Amino acid sequence: MNKQSIHDRIDNLRAALVEQDLTAIIVPSADPHLSEYLPEYWQARLWLSGFTGSVGTLVVTADFAGLWTDSRYWVHAADQLEGTGISLEKLAPGQPNHIDWLAEHLSEGDSVAVDGNVLSIAEQDKLLTAFDANDITLITDRDVLTDIWTDRPTLPTAKLYVHDAQFVAQSAASKLAAVRSGMRDAGATHHLLSSLDDIAWLTNLRGADVDYNPVFLAHLLIDIEDTATLFIDNNKVSAEIEQSLTDSGFTLADYEAVQDALGALTPENLLLLDPSKIAVGTLSKMVDNVGFMEQMAPSSLLKSVKSDADIDHVREAMRQDGAALCEFFATFEQRLANGERLSELDVDSMLIEVRSQQPNYVSPSFPTIAGFNDNGALPHYRATAEKFSYLDVSEGEGGLLLIDSGAQYQNGTTDITRVVGIGQVSSEHKRDFSTVLKAHVALARANFPDGIASPLIDAICRAPLWQAQMDYGHGTGHGVGYFLNVHEGPQVIAYSASTPKERAMKAGMISSNEPGLYREGKWGIRIENLMVNMPVQQPTETEFGNFLHFETVTYCPIDTRLVDKSLLTAIEIDWLNNYHSQVYAELNKRVSGVALEWLTERTKAI
Amino acid sequence: MNKQSIHDRIDNLRAALVEQDLTAIIVPSADPHLSEYLPEYWQARLWLSGFTGSVGTLVVTADFAGLWTDSRYWVHAADQLEGTGISLEKLAPGQPNHIDWLAEHLSEGDSVAVDGNVLSIAEQDKLLTAFDANDITLITDRDVLTDIWTDRPTLPTAKLYVHDAQFVAQSAASKLAAVRSGMRDAGATHHLLSSLDDIAWLTNLRGADVDYNPVFLAHLLIDIEDTATLFIDNNKVSAEIEQSLTDSGFTLADYEAVQDALGALTPENLLLLDPSKIAVGTLSKMVDNVGFMEQMAPSSLLKSVKSDADIDHVREAMRQDGAALCEFFATFEQRLANGERLSELDVDSMLIEVRSQQPNYVSPSFPTIAGFNDNGALPHYRATAEKFSYLDVSEGEGGLLLIDSGAQYQNGTTDITRVVGIGQVSSEHKRDFSTVLKAHVALARANFPDGIASPLIDAICRAPLWQAQMDYGHGTGHGVGYFLNVHEGPQVIAYSASTPKERAMKAGMISSNEPGLYREGKWGIRIENLMVNMPVQQPTETEFGNFLHFETVTYCPIDTRLVDKSLLTAIEIDWLNNYHSQVYAELNKRVSGVALEWLTERTKAI
Repeated sequence: MNKQSIHDRIDNLRAALVEQDLTAIIVPSADPHLSEYLPEYWQARLWLSGFTGSVGTLVVTADFAGLWTDSRYWVHAADQLEGTGISLEKLAPGQPNHIDWLAEHLSEGDSVAVDGNVLSIAEQDKLLTAFDANDITLITDRDVLTDIWTDRPTLPTAKLYVHDAQFVAQSAASKLAAVRSGMRDAGATHHLLSSLDDIAWLTNLRGADVDYNPVFLAHLLIDIEDTATLFIDNNKVSAEIEQSLTDSGFTLADYEAVQDALGALTPENLLLLDPSKIAVGTLSKMVDNVGFMEQMAPSSLLKSVKSDADIDHVREAMRQDGAALCEFFATFEQRLANGERLSELDVDSMLIEVRSQQPNYVSPSFPTIAGFNDNGALPHYRATAEKFSYLDVSEGEGGLLLIDSGAQYQNGTTDITRVVGIGQVSSEHKRDFSTVLKAHVALARANFPDGIASPLIDAICRAPLWQAQMDYGHGTGHGVGYFLNVHEGPQVIAYSASTPKERAMKAGMISSNEPGLYREGKWGIRIENLMVNMPVQQPTETEFGNFLHFETVTYCPIDTRLVDKSLLTAIEIDWLNNYHSQVYAELNKRVSGVALEWLTERTKAI
Repeated sequence: MNKQSIHDRIDNLRAALVEQDLTAIIVPSADPHLSEYLPEYWQARLWLSGFTGSVGTLVVTADFAGLWTDSRYWVHAADQLEGTGISLEKLAPGQPNHIDWLAEHLSEGDSVAVDGNVLSIAEQDKLLTAFDANDITLITDRDVLTDIWTDRPTLPTAKLYVHDAQFVAQSAASKLAAVRSGMRDAGATHHLLSSLDDIAWLTNLRGADVDYNPVFLAHLLIDIEDTATLFIDNNKVSAEIEQSLTDSGFTLADYEAVQDALGALTPENLLLLDPSKIAVGTLSKMVDNVGFMEQMAPSSLLKSVKSDADIDHVREAMRQDGAALCEFFATFEQRLANGERLSELDVDSMLIEVRSQQPNYVSPSFPTIAGFNDNGALPHYRATAEKFSYLDVSEGEGGLLLIDSGAQYQNGTTDITRVVGIGQVSSEHKRDFSTVLKAHVALARANFPDGIASPLIDAICRAPLWQAQMDYGHGTGHGVGYFLNVHEGPQVIAYSASTPKERAMKAGMISSNEPGLYREGKWGIRIENLMVNMPVQQPTETEFGNFLHFETVTYCPIDTRLVDKSLLTAIEIDWLNNYHSQVYAELNKRVSGVALEWLTERTKAI
């Protein structure tokens, strides 16, 4: 990115602020769907600042430009913002965020613009609370950027496709009926969805409008009777898909028509929506006094609880992914052993190569994190052509390579992190790795009460790390979609999260188990498998209630060369050995040659 | 209790309802201080219903009388309410409480009375939310009972006494300054305290107005400048104490004058209060528009964080208590061995006997729970002269006796639960006991981040029980006062609790560690020690933050005859053996004869 062009863009933006009599503008990393991955059309924050991280908020005033981002991106952002005139503002617990900054630096009567199309209702509430107290006006109905962003990309136009029927257990019509049942329970007459994974799940359709998540841009307005209107660019929809949507009870309308449709609601209606998943701009034409019910969308829970058939497909996707990983690791280690010089970027391309040969492969499920040594200590590191490391170690020395990667298959979404030793690893490497492994095992083998709020079990995972006075700054587990987003709610195994009933653990949910340890400037460790919530089988119910356990469904060896056996208990050693015999059993018929040799060697009991 | 007299009282109450044009009355278990133990004057619910449990809410209408109480008391309440015409309404998660019942059964225009003197602001908020929606009027400014409760007891008149200076590390004046500092941080001009433990802590005075808690009835109104008015029955205050209060910056006023004093506040004032600890009636004369800040009282946190000197005194109180328990157990087991027939009531009287011989002893800290076999399965069982069990076992059979007891010493408050086997215990007894022990040890040896919300570490304790599909229906740990209430906040190790920042774990807090297991109709198990939050010493800080650990300060053997060693890990066995060698070291110089023999035998390594 040319730093001068950033200067020019900020200058143009400031001129627009003056012209429109605005004191400040907030440019968040968001779109009308509050998605994790944004179409280029909505990447205004990147375009204005040059910062490529996925999360960050830019604030510009006449004499200030600052970008708030969290610790994952500080190193990266400092580098990219240098020389742009934009300051890096470090977002951290207890530190002022951009809202605090604005409330402190602006004066009564000032006006702040945010594009309402990229501002959730929940975020707007926070801004209004801070601004009302200081008599600052929030303006959300102007797109200040249009005039200055002359080469703004267009919206994506990828065609929809049908989620292969052999992998779909429930019809779209049946899912729609289940959502209406949730609306009825809540007493709603209408329900608006803008979240793309909910819409893809509900319609059994997929798209390619953004990277990594197989979703398409749309809104969906469902009434309690018989109308469900899908607002979507009609060019994306084939005649066959349109027919099948009609048969399932959906009506098509233009993507842009959602605001008018909401404008037609009356005060007799009661609209259910999730305020964190709906943009203010989408509601801009609504009349006053339409009733709101702000709560989690019924589909969020329905989508997270996978059916037995879905879970069977996921197990198969995991076998495919595991076989691909055996191919990768065997080849990778052989090339290194042959003295070839490999880099973090080679890891990424080799992974995509082996996975793409598997049946039902669609794409990576997120950008590969391949971080060697100090790069591995950045939990969200991403090697780029401009900045990456070779996996070089000096004679007699060693290092750790952290690889976090995943794929979208039509029969399941994968996400796995492994750490491998390169060269001669040290006892410190092994101590850290073994302690993270203890944490991983503690969660993997835990039973817990059916329905417990997911954040409450995080301490079971962290306890072995805490015992060694270690910890990690990210959550332990996120929900994972079924050929959908690799990050989905409502459950989250993270003690920093709040514990509403909505985060309850239910049988059929899939979550990651990814404790880690990051030594700045040295190395990073994370061991991640996906797990399914399963009812404990024997007995199914005791006088003390129902319990769930985790079935680990990621099949790939954990590097036993990094394990200091003396740090593990007998129970932990048993878990590891049992896991490896299962991995061998699941994969040995699917690989051959060096991959089978590698699998056989790396699944040996310790 | 004569059941006919209950009938008569309810009839009289109904006549009063008619006369005063009321549809219903709510009679909670509370007083103007929202205390756990109530003076007889405020035990209207007991007087009206005959139910002696500590928690329960009575609702009476023209044709209904029902008492809501939780599962701890269902057996007990069913027995006591039988034949009174009052129905037992079981309070349980997801079941309607008395508020739901009233909202459902009453009609628009109906009026419900509650004595505002026994209704917290927080409870009133709940009632108003339910009643406003149904157009039901809440009346809190009438005491309907006065006319019918003709022999109502008077308020208690116990004299105040000074908390022995040798056990007090901080002067009352210094505590008052610390509270004012908290008021300043919050921006409050005034602060009202009605909670008796806060007032006792702040003044370094103690009283005997209620059972078990060494507190006295008072309110305290503190302004940010220099006035702190203690509202108290002046007859309780000696001239010396009055002088010392004056010297510390307190002014005395009549107990009843608190309402007038609050009535003198103006809209310029900002009153800090904890809405769960202040009764509506106390504020009845306040003018409109006085500003409120509803938050935890600064003294609640200050009181919970004990100083090093306090903790040293507590350790000594624990040695005294441990020595007394050795005397008790040795004598108890000898008498049983001699063929004497003993009952649960004997356990209580023997415990009081041995503890009362210790220096600085004041009273029990709560009613002893001595429950044999099925009685032990009731977590809050209390043997009474009318209903208790003998510790009888048949030849070749065995049972479990659960003993939960504690004492108030001027140098500390104790609370301990032990389970002992009587006769020939079974492998099921041992399996259950050993599993609870695993849970106890898991928490006792845990490290955890400084400042973590206390409910979040509960899962560390429960994990071993969950693993065996077992659980218990009460919290794992409560805060414990320093020669004050045996139950105090703000911390609570219970995953069912919410997790606001106020529940953060801080060094110096004392909490119980009391996992249990209750098999209805069979036996109950609970293993309880008190523990102090201590900073981890080596190293004091790592790159991953500060960590706390628990120092167990209860010194008394855990019955190793009930342990199935094969169920414990090496780490758990080590913990138990280390604990027992510490118990021996702390107590062996303090006991002699059979008590020393018992201690020596029961602290042997397994």
